[in-house]
Amino acid sequence: MLYAGICNTDLELQRGYYGFRGTPGHEFVGEVLEANDRAWVGERVVGEINLACRRCEWCARGLGRHCPKRTVLGIVNHPGAFRELLTLPEHNLHRVPRRIASEDAVFVEPLAAACEILDQVQIPRGATVGVLGDGKLGLLIGQVLKAHGAEVHQYGRHKEKLRIAADRGIDARIIRKNMPKAAYQWLVDATGSGDGLRQAVGMTKPRGTVILKSTMHGLVPVDTAPVIVNEITLVGSRCGRFEPALRLLQNGRVDVRPLISEVIPLKWAKAAFKQAAAPGVLKVMLQS
Amino acid sequence: MLYAGICNTDLELQRGYYGFRGTPGHEFVGEVLEANDRAWVGERVVGEINLACRRCEWCARGLGRHCPKRTVLGIVNHPGAFRELLTLPEHNLHRVPRRIASEDAVFVEPLAAACEILDQVQIPRGATVGVLGDGKLGLLIGQVLKAHGAEVHQYGRHKEKLRIAADRGIDARIIRKNMPKAAYQWLVDATGSGDGLRQAVGMTKPRGTVILKSTMHGLVPVDTAPVIVNEITLVGSRCGRFEPALRLLQNGRVDVRPLISEVIPLKWAKAAFKQAAAPGVLKVMLQS
Repeated sequence: MLYAGICNTDLELQRGYYGFRGTPGHEFVGEVLEANDRAWVGERVVGEINLACRRCEWCARGLGRHCPKRTVLGIVNHPGAFRELLTLPEHNLHRVPRRIASEDAVFVEPLAAACEILDQVQIPRGATVGVLGDGKLGLLIGQVLKAHGAEVHQYGRHKEKLRIAADRGIDARIIRKNMPKAAYQWLVDATGSGDGLRQAVGMTKPRGTVILKSTMHGLVPVDTAPVIVNEITLVGSRCGRFEPALRLLQNGRVDVRPLISEVIPLKWAKAAFKQAAAPGVLKVMLQS
Repeated sequence: MLYAGICNTDLELQRGYYGFRGTPGHEFVGEVLEANDRAWVGERVVGEINLACRRCEWCARGLGRHCPKRTVLGIVNHPGAFRELLTLPEHNLHRVPRRIASEDAVFVEPLAAACEILDQVQIPRGATVGVLGDGKLGLLIGQVLKAHGAEVHQYGRHKEKLRIAADRGIDARIIRKNMPKAAYQWLVDATGSGDGLRQAVGMTKPRGTVILKSTMHGLVPVDTAPVIVNEITLVGSRCGRFEPALRLLQNGRVDVRPLISEVIPLKWAKAAFKQAAAPGVLKVMLQS
């Protein structure tokens, strides 16, 4: 491991929400030390986090991310990236092009998750899309949709985070009590809160689509009446393919650098976790 | 009004969930007594329940059902069908073909709501579809999907209601504690309960679709984690076009007769409401 990023999921694993035990960490860039195929050795790589069986119907359809037998790096039954050495199958690896700095490559995994939206939902170029939330994932989603050609309205509670979006030409707006009603055909909820989901439903036009991009633990109270009355579609969205994310970093259409709050040595991981959970902090990275 | 059907929404209006005052009733068949266009007079008709402005972008797209200025027969600011005389704009009316009995025509509105699923979600003929719920709407949905060419698995808690589905060649199954996990690409929740929605999500394959066809009041606790992890799509679904419903009744591909529990004179409406709310009872109709 060269660098690894702390994600909100890691903070939730630490809080014990999923009964997780072991080494967390699923956003990383590393150097290959050993491999069956010697061509990998010495390469700088990122790695897809789902370890799929490669035999089931899901794997056959290229959706190993949904393989029912999968383990998941640092999340489900496979030790994660927050340590010097980690393992992944070779077919999970992607070489990192020279143009991409190692710190930036750490963002390939969450950026792929942001790109997943465009794999699931057809959003025409030029369409107006709302993004609720100005956290790490929300800011990546805003940039991905902007790069796709959408007109993005990014809503958040933090001026300094919204400035990162605004600097990329995104229309950034503070979340207020009265949000626009039935205003968006497409709306991404990346708030990580049940309030956000309720708000998102209210902001979506009849027959519109809300993309659920928030990790929330436990039961979220949802008012299903407006979903049904307005025939709104809710689309759950998780991990994505790495290729489009690598492309966006390589051609500079997404800038992840302003999202890095701190780089902290791996031996201070405990302090880094604390820092990652502090208000106003974006990406905290561990360096091996 | 000749006949009018009591729907679960009417029972909820009676319970005060939507602050409704006035005459309820939105499922009906009637005879036209007066009209600007004299050709309507004497015709036996059913009527679309949304009174749209006919000028906005929704109306222009043929989606007056989502017109933001609409009133709704017996539900929102327009007196309903549970009385001798009611009014609707002429363009809301549909002539009832002679082959369709008046009692059956009362089902056009809920049958259109069942057909709406096929307007929203592409379900290939021959696909297996789960339907959760054996209430009035659930049983109509099962028949509509069966007529569409789907292989329907209808789940319910009531043997006698499931028999109606089984008599139509539908694979009818009692809801048990352990339901099939991740088994359906398409699943309709017509249970009218939050439990049903949770169960539906668990029964749906990754990347599958749950169609929300239940009226539920208040906040429903939803575990969003499996929706996101399995990238499930939830589609809210409400009213539909009347044409496909009339066609299904006319060609006999849907049989609504077994769904009629009782026909009660309008003057005994209070007792009829009580009866409609009793366990095991399906459609209770008022006769003018």
